Amino acid sequence: MQERAVHTRELLLRAAAEEFDAAGYASTGLSKIAKRAGLTVGALYFHFESKEGLAKAVMRAQPQSIEPHLDSEGLQRLVDITRVWAQQLLRDPLLRAGVRLSVEQGGFGVQDITSFLQWRDTMEECLRDARESGELLPRTDPARVAEFIVSACTGVQLYAQLVNGRRDLPERTVEMWRLLLPGIATPGTLPRIDLAPWPGES
Amino acid sequence: MQERAVHTRELLLRAAAEEFDAAGYASTGLSKIAKRAGLTVGALYFHFESKEGLAKAVMRAQPQSIEPHLDSEGLQRLVDITRVWAQQLLRDPLLRAGVRLSVEQGGFGVQDITSFLQWRDTMEECLRDARESGELLPRTDPARVAEFIVSACTGVQLYAQLVNGRRDLPERTVEMWRLLLPGIATPGTLPRIDLAPWPGES
Repeated sequence: MQERAVHTRELLLRAAAEEFDAAGYASTGLSKIAKRAGLTVGALYFHFESKEGLAKAVMRAQPQSIEPHLDSEGLQRLVDITRVWAQQLLRDPLLRAGVRLSVEQGGFGVQDITSFLQWRDTMEECLRDARESGELLPRTDPARVAEFIVSACTGVQLYAQLVNGRRDLPERTVEMWRLLLPGIATPGTLPRIDLAPWPGES
Repeated sequence: MQERAVHTRELLLRAAAEEFDAAGYASTGLSKIAKRAGLTVGALYFHFESKEGLAKAVMRAQPQSIEPHLDSEGLQRLVDITRVWAQQLLRDPLLRAGVRLSVEQGGFGVQDITSFLQWRDTMEECLRDARESGELLPRTDPARVAEFIVSACTGVQLYAQLVNGRRDLPERTVEMWRLLLPGIATPGTLPRIDLAPWPGES
Protein backbone atom coordinates (compact mmCIF):
# COMPACT_ATOMS: atom_id res chain seq x y z
CA MET A 1 0.00 0.00 0.00
CA GLN A 2 2.80 2.43 0.93
CA GLU A 3 4.51 1.75 -2.40
CA ARG A 4 1.27 2.32 -4.24
CA ALA A 5 0.75 5.67 -2.48
CA VAL A 6 4.25 6.78 -3.49
CA HIS A 7 3.52 5.74 -7.07
CA THR A 8 0.21 7.65 -7.10
CA ARG A 9 1.85 10.75 -5.66
CA GLU A 10 4.53 10.64 -8.36
CA LEU A 11 1.84 10.17 -11.02
CA LEU A 12 0.00 13.26 -9.77
CA LEU A 13 3.22 15.27 -9.57
CA ARG A 14 4.06 14.44 -13.21
CA ALA A 15 0.49 15.16 -14.37
CA ALA A 16 0.55 18.51 -12.54
CA ALA A 17 3.96 19.33 -14.04
CA GLU A 18 2.72 18.61 -17.56
CA GLU A 19 -0.29 20.89 -17.08
CA PHE A 20 1.68 23.69 -15.36
CA ASP A 21 4.41 23.43 -17.99
CA ALA A 22 1.92 23.77 -20.84
CA ALA A 23 -0.49 26.35 -19.43
CA GLY A 24 1.06 28.01 -16.38
CA TYR A 25 -0.30 28.14 -12.84
CA ALA A 26 -3.34 30.38 -13.31
CA SER A 27 -4.82 28.43 -16.22
CA THR A 28 -4.39 24.98 -14.67
CA GLY A 29 -7.28 23.45 -12.72
CA LEU A 30 -7.08 20.56 -10.27
CA SER A 31 -9.72 18.60 -12.20
CA LYS A 32 -7.57 18.70 -15.32
CA ILE A 33 -4.55 17.45 -13.36
CA ALA A 34 -6.58 14.62 -11.77
CA LYS A 35 -8.00 13.65 -15.16
CA ARG A 36 -4.55 13.54 -16.74
CA ALA A 37 -3.38 11.26 -13.93
CA GLY A 38 -6.47 9.05 -14.39
CA LEU A 39 -7.65 9.82 -10.86
CA THR A 40 -10.45 11.71 -9.11
CA VAL A 41 -10.02 15.15 -7.55
CA GLY A 42 -10.76 13.43 -4.24
CA ALA A 43 -7.75 11.16 -4.73
CA LEU A 44 -5.65 14.22 -5.56
CA TYR A 45 -6.67 15.89 -2.28
CA PHE A 46 -5.52 12.78 -0.42
CA HIS A 47 -1.96 13.55 -1.57
CA PHE A 48 -1.89 17.37 -1.92
CA GLU A 49 -3.83 19.88 0.16
CA SER A 50 -4.24 22.50 -2.60
CA LYS A 51 -3.10 23.70 -6.02
CA GLU A 52 -0.50 25.81 -4.25
CA GLY A 53 0.76 22.74 -2.36
CA LEU A 54 1.03 20.84 -5.64
CA ALA A 55 2.91 23.74 -7.25
CA LYS A 56 5.36 23.84 -4.35
CA ALA A 57 5.93 20.08 -4.63
CA VAL A 58 6.65 20.49 -8.37
CA MET A 59 9.11 23.32 -7.66
CA ARG A 60 10.88 21.24 -5.00
CA ALA A 61 11.16 18.15 -7.22
CA GLN A 62 13.70 19.86 -9.51
CA PRO A 63 16.84 18.13 -8.21
CA GLN A 64 15.29 14.68 -8.94
CA SER A 65 15.82 15.31 -12.64
CA ILE A 66 19.57 15.89 -12.29
CA GLU A 67 21.03 13.74 -9.57
CA PRO A 68 20.89 10.29 -11.20
CA HIS A 69 22.95 11.53 -14.15
CA LEU A 70 26.24 12.46 -12.51
CA ASP A 71 29.45 10.85 -11.37
CA SER A 72 32.00 13.72 -11.57
CA GLU A 73 33.45 15.65 -8.61
CA GLY A 74 34.32 19.18 -7.42
CA LEU A 75 34.23 21.93 -10.00
CA GLN A 76 33.60 19.49 -12.86
CA ARG A 77 30.55 18.20 -10.99
CA LEU A 78 29.23 21.77 -10.58
CA VAL A 79 29.68 22.37 -14.31
CA ASP A 80 28.05 19.04 -15.15
CA ILE A 81 25.03 19.71 -12.90
CA THR A 82 24.26 22.85 -14.89
CA ARG A 83 24.82 21.06 -18.21
CA VAL A 84 22.53 18.14 -17.32
CA TRP A 85 20.02 20.72 -16.07
CA ALA A 86 20.18 22.56 -19.42
CA GLN A 87 19.60 19.33 -21.36
CA GLN A 88 16.87 18.06 -19.06
CA LEU A 89 15.00 21.36 -19.32
CA LEU A 90 14.57 20.57 -23.02
CA ARG A 91 12.92 17.20 -22.39
CA ASP A 92 11.67 16.80 -18.81
CA PRO A 93 8.29 18.49 -18.12
CA LEU A 94 8.70 17.98 -14.36
CA LEU A 95 11.92 20.02 -14.31
CA ARG A 96 10.55 22.55 -16.80
CA ALA A 97 7.40 23.14 -14.76
CA GLY A 98 9.46 23.42 -11.58
CA VAL A 99 11.64 26.11 -13.11
CA ARG A 100 8.66 27.91 -14.67
CA LEU A 101 6.71 28.01 -11.40
CA SER A 102 9.79 29.12 -9.44
CA VAL A 103 10.27 32.08 -11.77
CA GLU A 104 6.59 33.02 -12.10
CA GLN A 105 5.55 32.35 -8.47
CA GLY A 106 5.27 36.07 -7.63
CA GLY A 107 2.50 36.28 -10.21
CA PHE A 108 0.31 33.84 -8.28
CA GLY A 109 1.14 35.11 -4.82
CA VAL A 110 3.64 32.47 -3.70
CA GLN A 111 7.09 33.18 -2.28
CA ASP A 112 8.85 29.84 -1.87
CA ILE A 113 12.64 30.03 -1.97
CA THR A 114 13.08 26.31 -1.20
CA SER A 115 14.03 25.14 -4.70
CA PHE A 116 16.59 27.94 -5.06
CA LEU A 117 18.15 26.93 -1.72
CA GLN A 118 18.22 23.26 -2.78
CA TRP A 119 20.25 24.19 -5.84
CA ARG A 120 22.48 26.51 -3.83
CA ASP A 121 23.25 23.80 -1.27
CA THR A 122 24.07 21.24 -3.96
CA MET A 123 26.34 23.71 -5.75
CA GLU A 124 28.00 24.93 -2.57
CA GLU A 125 28.88 21.32 -1.71
CA CYS A 126 30.62 20.93 -5.09
CA LEU A 127 32.53 24.15 -4.49
CA ARG A 128 33.60 23.02 -1.00
CA ASP A 129 34.92 19.80 -2.53
CA ALA A 130 36.65 21.89 -5.18
CA ARG A 131 38.25 24.03 -2.45
CA GLU A 132 39.59 20.92 -0.69
CA SER A 133 41.05 19.66 -3.96
CA GLY A 134 42.79 23.02 -4.50
CA GLU A 135 40.76 23.89 -7.58
CA LEU A 136 39.59 27.34 -6.40
CA LEU A 137 41.26 30.73 -6.34
CA PRO A 138 41.83 31.88 -2.74
CA ARG A 139 39.25 34.68 -3.04
CA THR A 140 36.46 32.33 -4.24
CA ASP A 141 33.71 32.08 -1.61
CA PRO A 142 31.78 28.80 -2.16
CA ALA A 143 28.52 30.09 -0.63
CA ARG A 144 28.41 33.36 -2.58
CA VAL A 145 29.53 31.77 -5.84
CA ALA A 146 26.90 29.04 -5.44
CA GLU A 147 24.21 31.72 -5.02
CA PHE A 148 25.45 33.52 -8.10
CA ILE A 149 25.44 30.33 -10.23
CA VAL A 150 21.85 29.56 -9.21
CA SER A 151 20.87 33.15 -10.03
CA ALA A 152 22.70 33.18 -13.36
CA CYS A 153 21.24 29.83 -14.46
CA THR A 154 17.75 31.09 -13.59
CA GLY A 155 18.25 34.16 -15.73
CA VAL A 156 19.96 32.34 -18.61
CA GLN A 157 17.11 29.84 -19.00
CA LEU A 158 14.51 32.64 -18.89
CA TYR A 159 16.36 34.62 -21.55
CA ALA A 160 16.84 31.52 -23.74
CA GLN A 161 13.18 30.62 -23.32
CA LEU A 162 12.04 34.05 -24.53
CA VAL A 163 14.51 34.17 -27.43
CA ASN A 164 14.13 30.67 -28.86
CA GLY A 165 12.23 28.36 -26.53
CA ARG A 166 15.54 27.39 -24.81
CA ARG A 167 16.84 25.59 -27.92
CA ASP A 168 20.39 26.89 -27.36
CA LEU A 169 20.39 26.64 -23.55
CA PRO A 170 23.11 23.93 -23.51
CA GLU A 171 25.48 26.20 -25.49
CA ARG A 172 24.60 29.22 -23.34
CA THR A 173 25.42 27.18 -20.26
CA VAL A 174 28.86 26.25 -21.60
CA GLU A 175 29.48 29.89 -22.54
CA MET A 176 28.56 30.91 -19.01
CA TRP A 177 31.31 28.65 -17.70
CA ARG A 178 33.91 29.97 -20.17
CA LEU A 179 33.16 33.42 -18.75
CA LEU A 180 32.99 32.42 -15.09
CA LEU A 181 35.73 29.87 -14.61
CA PRO A 182 38.67 32.33 -14.86
CA GLY A 183 37.18 34.24 -11.89
CA ILE A 184 36.65 31.06 -9.82
CA ALA A 185 39.30 28.42 -10.57
CA THR A 186 43.09 28.42 -10.36
CA PRO A 187 44.87 28.79 -13.72
CA GLY A 188 46.09 25.19 -13.43
CA THR A 189 42.52 23.89 -13.02
CA LEU A 190 41.06 25.70 -16.06
CA PRO A 191 42.36 23.39 -18.80
CA ARG A 192 41.23 20.31 -16.84
CA ILE A 193 37.52 21.34 -16.83
CA ASP A 194 35.76 19.52 -19.65
CA LEU A 195 33.36 21.80 -21.57
CA ALA A 196 33.34 19.80 -24.82
CA PRO A 197 29.94 19.18 -26.46
CA TRP A 198 28.06 16.13 -25.27
CA PRO A 199 26.41 13.59 -27.59
CA GLY A 200 23.30 15.24 -29.02
CA GLU A 201 24.50 18.80 -28.34
CA SER A 202 25.29 20.93 -31.35
CA MET B 1 -2.05 69.60 -26.13
CA GLN B 2 0.72 67.27 -27.32
CA GLU B 3 2.70 68.02 -24.17
CA ARG B 4 -0.33 67.37 -22.01
CA ALA B 5 -0.93 64.01 -23.72
CA VAL B 6 2.68 63.01 -23.03
CA HIS B 7 2.26 64.03 -19.40
CA THR B 8 -1.00 62.05 -19.05
CA ARG B 9 0.58 58.96 -20.63
CA GLU B 10 3.50 59.16 -18.20
CA LEU B 11 1.05 59.60 -15.30
CA LEU B 12 -0.80 56.44 -16.36
CA LEU B 13 2.44 54.52 -16.85
CA ARG B 14 3.58 55.38 -13.31
CA ALA B 15 0.16 54.58 -11.82
CA ALA B 16 0.13 51.23 -13.64
CA ALA B 17 3.67 50.50 -12.47
CA GLU B 18 2.76 51.20 -8.85
CA GLU B 19 -0.23 48.85 -9.04
CA PHE B 20 1.64 46.09 -10.92
CA ASP B 21 4.60 46.42 -8.57
CA ALA B 22 2.39 46.05 -5.50
CA ALA B 23 -0.07 43.39 -6.66
CA GLY B 24 1.23 41.77 -9.86
CA TYR B 25 -0.47 41.59 -13.25
CA ALA B 26 -3.39 39.28 -12.49
CA SER B 27 -4.64 41.20 -9.44
CA THR B 28 -4.44 44.66 -11.03
CA GLY B 29 -7.53 46.12 -12.72
CA LEU B 30 -7.64 49.01 -15.18
CA SER B 31 -10.14 50.91 -13.01
CA LYS B 32 -7.67 50.84 -10.11
CA ILE B 33 -4.90 52.18 -12.35
CA ALA B 34 -7.12 54.95 -13.73
CA LYS B 35 -8.24 55.89 -10.22
CA ARG B 36 -4.65 56.10 -8.98
CA ALA B 37 -3.82 58.39 -11.90
CA GLY B 38 -6.88 60.53 -11.15
CA LEU B 39 -8.40 59.72 -14.56
CA THR B 40 -11.29 57.74 -16.01
CA VAL B 41 -10.93 54.32 -17.61
CA GLY B 42 -12.04 55.99 -20.85
CA ALA B 43 -9.05 58.35 -20.66
CA LEU B 44 -6.81 55.34 -20.02
CA TYR B 45 -8.10 53.64 -23.19
CA PHE B 46 -7.21 56.76 -25.15
CA HIS B 47 -3.53 56.06 -24.33
CA PHE B 48 -3.35 52.26 -24.00
CA GLU B 49 -5.42 49.69 -25.87
CA SER B 50 -5.50 47.08 -23.08
CA LYS B 51 -4.02 45.93 -19.78
CA GLU B 52 -1.53 43.88 -21.79
CA GLY B 53 -0.54 46.97 -23.78
CA LEU B 54 -0.01 48.87 -20.54
CA ALA B 55 2.09 46.03 -19.11
CA LYS B 56 4.26 45.99 -22.24
CA ALA B 57 4.76 49.77 -22.00
CA VAL B 58 5.84 49.37 -18.36
CA MET B 59 8.29 46.61 -19.30
CA ARG B 60 9.74 48.71 -22.11
CA ALA B 61 10.16 51.82 -19.93
CA GLN B 62 12.96 50.18 -17.89
CA PRO B 63 15.91 51.99 -19.50
CA GLN B 64 14.36 55.40 -18.62
CA SER B 65 15.26 54.79 -14.98
CA ILE B 66 18.96 54.30 -15.70
CA GLU B 67 20.09 56.48 -18.55
CA PRO B 68 20.04 59.93 -16.91
CA HIS B 69 22.41 58.75 -14.17
CA LEU B 70 25.54 57.87 -16.12
CA ASP B 71 28.58 59.55 -17.56
CA SER B 72 31.20 56.75 -17.61
CA GLU B 73 32.40 54.85 -20.71
CA GLY B 74 33.24 51.36 -21.95
CA LEU B 75 33.47 48.59 -19.39
CA GLN B 76 33.06 51.02 -16.49
CA ARG B 77 29.81 52.23 -18.05
CA LEU B 78 28.54 48.65 -18.34
CA VAL B 79 29.36 48.06 -14.67
CA ASP B 80 27.75 51.36 -13.67
CA ILE B 81 24.55 50.61 -15.62
CA THR B 82 24.04 47.45 -13.57
CA ARG B 83 24.88 49.25 -10.32
CA VAL B 84 22.45 52.12 -10.99
CA TRP B 85 19.87 49.48 -11.98
CA ALA B 86 20.41 47.65 -8.66
CA GLN B 87 19.96 50.86 -6.67
CA GLN B 88 16.98 52.09 -8.71
CA LEU B 89 15.22 48.73 -8.26
CA LEU B 90 15.13 49.52 -4.54
CA ARG B 91 13.35 52.84 -5.00
CA ASP B 92 11.75 53.22 -8.44
CA PRO B 93 8.35 51.46 -8.81
CA LEU B 94 8.39 51.96 -12.60
CA LEU B 95 11.64 50.00 -12.95
CA ARG B 96 10.57 47.44 -10.34
CA ALA B 97 7.25 46.77 -12.07
CA GLY B 98 9.01 46.52 -15.44
CA VAL B 99 11.38 43.88 -14.10
CA ARG B 100 8.62 42.02 -12.28
CA LEU B 101 6.36 41.88 -15.34
CA SER B 102 9.25 40.83 -17.59
CA VAL B 103 10.03 37.89 -15.32
CA GLU B 104 6.42 36.87 -14.63
CA GLN B 105 5.02 37.51 -18.14
CA GLY B 106 4.75 33.79 -18.96
CA GLY B 107 2.25 33.51 -16.12
CA PHE B 108 -0.17 35.90 -17.82
CA GLY B 109 0.34 34.64 -21.35
CA VAL B 110 2.67 37.32 -22.71
CA GLN B 111 5.98 36.68 -24.46
CA ASP B 112 7.61 40.07 -25.04
CA ILE B 113 11.39 39.96 -25.29
CA THR B 114 11.67 43.71 -26.11
CA SER B 115 12.93 44.90 -22.72
CA PHE B 116 15.58 42.16 -22.61
CA LEU B 117 16.78 43.19 -26.08
CA GLN B 118 16.86 46.87 -25.03
CA TRP B 119 19.21 45.99 -22.18
CA ARG B 120 21.28 43.72 -24.41
CA ASP B 121 21.75 46.45 -27.03
CA THR B 122 22.75 49.04 -24.43
CA MET B 123 25.24 46.63 -22.87
CA GLU B 124 26.61 45.44 -26.20
CA GLU B 125 27.32 49.06 -27.12
CA CYS B 126 29.36 49.50 -23.93
CA LEU B 127 31.28 46.32 -24.72
CA ARG B 128 32.00 47.47 -28.30
CA ASP B 129 33.38 50.74 -26.90
CA ALA B 130 35.41 48.68 -24.44
CA ARG B 131 36.77 46.57 -27.31
CA GLU B 132 37.86 49.72 -29.20
CA SER B 133 39.60 51.01 -26.08
CA GLY B 134 41.48 47.71 -25.73
CA GLU B 135 39.76 46.78 -22.44
CA LEU B 136 38.57 43.31 -23.50
CA LEU B 137 40.29 39.95 -23.73
CA PRO B 138 40.54 38.81 -27.37
CA ARG B 139 38.07 35.94 -26.82
CA THR B 140 35.36 38.24 -25.35
CA ASP B 141 32.36 38.42 -27.72
CA PRO B 142 30.42 41.66 -26.98
CA ALA B 143 27.06 40.29 -28.18
CA ARG B 144 27.21 37.01 -26.24
CA VAL B 145 28.61 38.64 -23.09
CA ALA B 146 25.88 41.30 -23.23
CA GLU B 147 23.23 38.56 -23.40
CA PHE B 148 24.81 36.80 -20.44
CA ILE B 149 24.93 39.99 -18.33
CA VAL B 150 21.24 40.67 -18.99
CA SER B 151 20.44 37.06 -18.08
CA ALA B 152 22.59 37.08 -14.95
CA CYS B 153 21.16 40.39 -13.70
CA THR B 154 17.63 39.06 -14.24
CA GLY B 155 18.42 36.00 -12.15
CA VAL B 156 20.35 37.86 -9.44
CA GLN B 157 17.50 40.29 -8.78
CA LEU B 158 14.96 37.44 -8.64
CA TYR B 159 17.11 35.50 -6.18
CA ALA B 160 17.72 38.60 -4.04
CA GLN B 161 14.02 39.42 -4.10
CA LEU B 162 13.08 35.97 -2.80
CA VAL B 163 15.83 35.90 -0.16
CA ASN B 164 15.51 39.39 1.31
CA GLY B 165 13.33 41.67 -0.82
CA ARG B 166 16.43 42.71 -2.85
CA ARG B 167 17.98 44.53 0.12
CA ASP B 168 21.50 43.33 -0.80
CA LEU B 169 21.11 43.58 -4.58
CA PRO B 170 23.74 46.37 -4.88
CA GLU B 171 26.35 44.15 -3.15
CA ARG B 172 25.34 41.09 -5.19
CA THR B 173 25.81 43.16 -8.35
CA VAL B 174 29.35 44.17 -7.34
CA GLU B 175 30.14 40.54 -6.46
CA MET B 176 28.91 39.50 -9.89
CA TRP B 177 31.46 41.83 -11.46
CA ARG B 178 34.32 40.56 -9.26
CA LEU B 179 33.52 37.09 -10.59
CA LEU B 180 32.97 38.07 -14.22
CA LEU B 181 35.59 40.69 -14.96
CA PRO B 182 38.60 38.31 -15.00
CA GLY B 183 36.87 36.37 -17.81
CA ILE B 184 36.06 39.52 -19.82
CA ALA B 185 38.73 42.21 -19.33
CA THR B 186 42.47 42.32 -19.91
CA PRO B 187 44.58 41.98 -16.74
CA GLY B 188 45.68 45.61 -17.14
CA THR B 189 42.06 46.83 -17.19
CA LEU B 190 40.93 45.00 -14.04
CA PRO B 191 42.46 47.34 -11.44
CA ARG B 192 41.04 50.38 -13.27
CA ILE B 193 37.39 49.27 -12.92
CA ASP B 194 35.88 51.04 -9.93
CA LEU B 195 33.73 48.71 -7.79
CA ALA B 196 33.97 50.72 -4.56
CA PRO B 197 30.73 51.26 -2.60
CA TRP B 198 28.67 54.26 -3.60
CA PRO B 199 27.21 56.77 -1.12
CA GLY B 200 24.29 55.05 0.59
CA GLU B 201 25.50 51.54 -0.21
CA SER B 202 26.66 49.44 2.70
